[in-house]
Amino acid sequence: MATVEGVYGGKRFNLKKYTFPTQQIPRLHYRDPEAERLIESGQPVVLTDSELVGSAYHWDLAYLCSNLGSGQYTVYSSENKKFKYYDEKKLPQNKDFTPPTSHSDMTFQEFASKLKKNNTSECLYLQQPLNDSVGKRVVMDFTNFNWSWANEQQRKNRWGPLTSNLLLVGMEGVITPAHYDEQENLFAQIQGYKRFLLFDPSQFECLYPYPIYHPHDRQSQVDFDNPDLDKFPMFSKLKGYEAIVGPKDVLYLPMYWWHQVESLPGYGETISITFWYKAAPTMKVVYPLTAGQKVAIMRNIEKMIAEALNDNTEMPTFMRTMVQGRYT
Amino acid sequence: MATVEGVYGGKRFNLKKYTFPTQQIPRLHYRDPEAERLIESGQPVVLTDSELVGSAYHWDLAYLCSNLGSGQYTVYSSENKKFKYYDEKKLPQNKDFTPPTSHSDMTFQEFASKLKKNNTSECLYLQQPLNDSVGKRVVMDFTNFNWSWANEQQRKNRWGPLTSNLLLVGMEGVITPAHYDEQENLFAQIQGYKRFLLFDPSQFECLYPYPIYHPHDRQSQVDFDNPDLDKFPMFSKLKGYEAIVGPKDVLYLPMYWWHQVESLPGYGETISITFWYKAAPTMKVVYPLTAGQKVAIMRNIEKMIAEALNDNTEMPTFMRTMVQGRYT
Ligand SMILES: [Zn+2]
Ligand SMILES: [Zn+2]
Repeated sequence: MATVEGVYGGKRFNLKKYTFPTQQIPRLHYRDPEAERLIESGQPVVLTDSELVGSAYHWDLAYLCSNLGSGQYTVYSSENKKFKYYDEKKLPQNKDFTPPTSHSDMTFQEFASKLKKNNTSECLYLQQPLNDSVGKRVVMDFTNFNWSWANEQQRKNRWGPLTSNLLLVGMEGVITPAHYDEQENLFAQIQGYKRFLLFDPSQFECLYPYPIYHPHDRQSQVDFDNPDLDKFPMFSKLKGYEAIVGPKDVLYLPMYWWHQVESLPGYGETISITFWYKAAPTMKVVYPLTAGQKVAIMRNIEKMIAEALNDNTEMPTFMRTMVQGRYT
Repeated sequence: MATVEGVYGGKRFNLKKYTFPTQQIPRLHYRDPEAERLIESGQPVVLTDSELVGSAYHWDLAYLCSNLGSGQYTVYSSENKKFKYYDEKKLPQNKDFTPPTSHSDMTFQEFASKLKKNNTSECLYLQQPLNDSVGKRVVMDFTNFNWSWANEQQRKNRWGPLTSNLLLVGMEGVITPAHYDEQENLFAQIQGYKRFLLFDPSQFECLYPYPIYHPHDRQSQVDFDNPDLDKFPMFSKLKGYEAIVGPKDVLYLPMYWWHQVESLPGYGETISITFWYKAAPTMKVVYPLTAGQKVAIMRNIEKMIAEALNDNTEMPTFMRTMVQGRYT
């Protein structure tokens, strides 16, 4: 596999080399007016010194083992390092779909002991919203997050409510393939290094997300390691952004921005916490619409058609008939 | 031009030969239970002996000149015999569009004298809803239409209200290219012979209607005389129905059925009257949907997208992005 060198704070990383160009995501002090401007305008930025999760900088496997309590955590398992999300609610209507990963619930202690066994044929990735079952110390750490700054961002950018804080603990080398989320995200890194590849919402046409009714909804169909340019010709026009995010960094990951996340090897498991916020309400509509607004419209249109047809297998023919030779 | 022979009541007609096969539309006595079954199930049928416009069988140019009054009639003019309808309300948003026909308003007497001049480079087609301005005798003829049978059909098939009766007077040889209408139609022939080419609503994908915002909405983009199979490959799969309709015949032309209408040469101008009815209300939705219901959904979807984008020039890219590589 071809690699390219990435540098972060004097450290050098071998990064997978892809077919598309990228430019660096700005890395700025969290009080830099330019950083505030980027967030306000829905552009990604790596923020330093925010101490958003400063009270959790000491979190590591041992600490979490001792203090996360005995609650159940969802642990995903993959045989090829990739953790392509799938929506279990969409499995019943997609009988032919084979999930690319499996998952099971276990205590954090069980997860940690599995990690230590270092089974090379199985990659593990814990992804679990923080909830009431955590121990007292973790509650205290959580309470001491820099909420005043987080709330300030929420207020200034008119984001909706905070919906969840996801705890992510991944083995070295795990990859979350390109997808977009429907919420604003402050992504706080605690341990280890992650490479983020980002693509703005206008790159939708280059990334070919699955049909809305598919379990891989919101995920790109394109295999970045081996893109099928006959099926996905616009992938050759893709242009990205990237950054390495390390301990204490916070990435502002705007809604509808595509992201692929790679846990970089050599520095142990990665520990991260997401802060997900609902979208800002639309005040008045300004034309032309933004790429993100168009994605939202497409999702609604696809949902309406799927509901009207009442049979997902009719969707491709319907969509083709509506568009091919008429709008192409 | 290649021709094929058509026979109607012992008469022989040279008909244009097209690239697609057709089968004959059934021709049945209006009280034949099979005819009633066809109408009920939304299938076309040529009905004989209904006398729907029996009180107008004596209409000809001279009679209409004397009795239609001095109201204004819309007369379309074409230089190539084809009268491809365009929606004038959609011209402002389509600056590059050049109307393929012109039209002007004139009295019926002016129209008749133009017809007699027999200017071979200009084809004329009068298309005007019957209204209050007509003379007493025509009012009487209209009153004496077989309304009891028409109302019976309307009631039995749960059609909505009668919206209009269009008077059509066309020169020999005029062609109305393939399109569909959004209403049920009882098409009554009075003078001359018309060839109808029909295509059921499932042939939508073979006929490539213009985008909804285009003035030629509901018309096929395909030139039947010279189909561009690179742009419109599915046209090669087209399968049609046809019938010659002569004086006293009534064609039931179901909603969303495509039709091309050709006034056959050799028997003078054609005179016809349409009875247009709104659709039957949908009682309960049954899956899978009919091809006509899918056309209705497509139209609504396209309208919603056009409204959301607020700029028709953005439609093709939006539609392509939503579908290509995703549902293709
Ligand atoms: Zn994500
Ligand atoms: Zn029509």
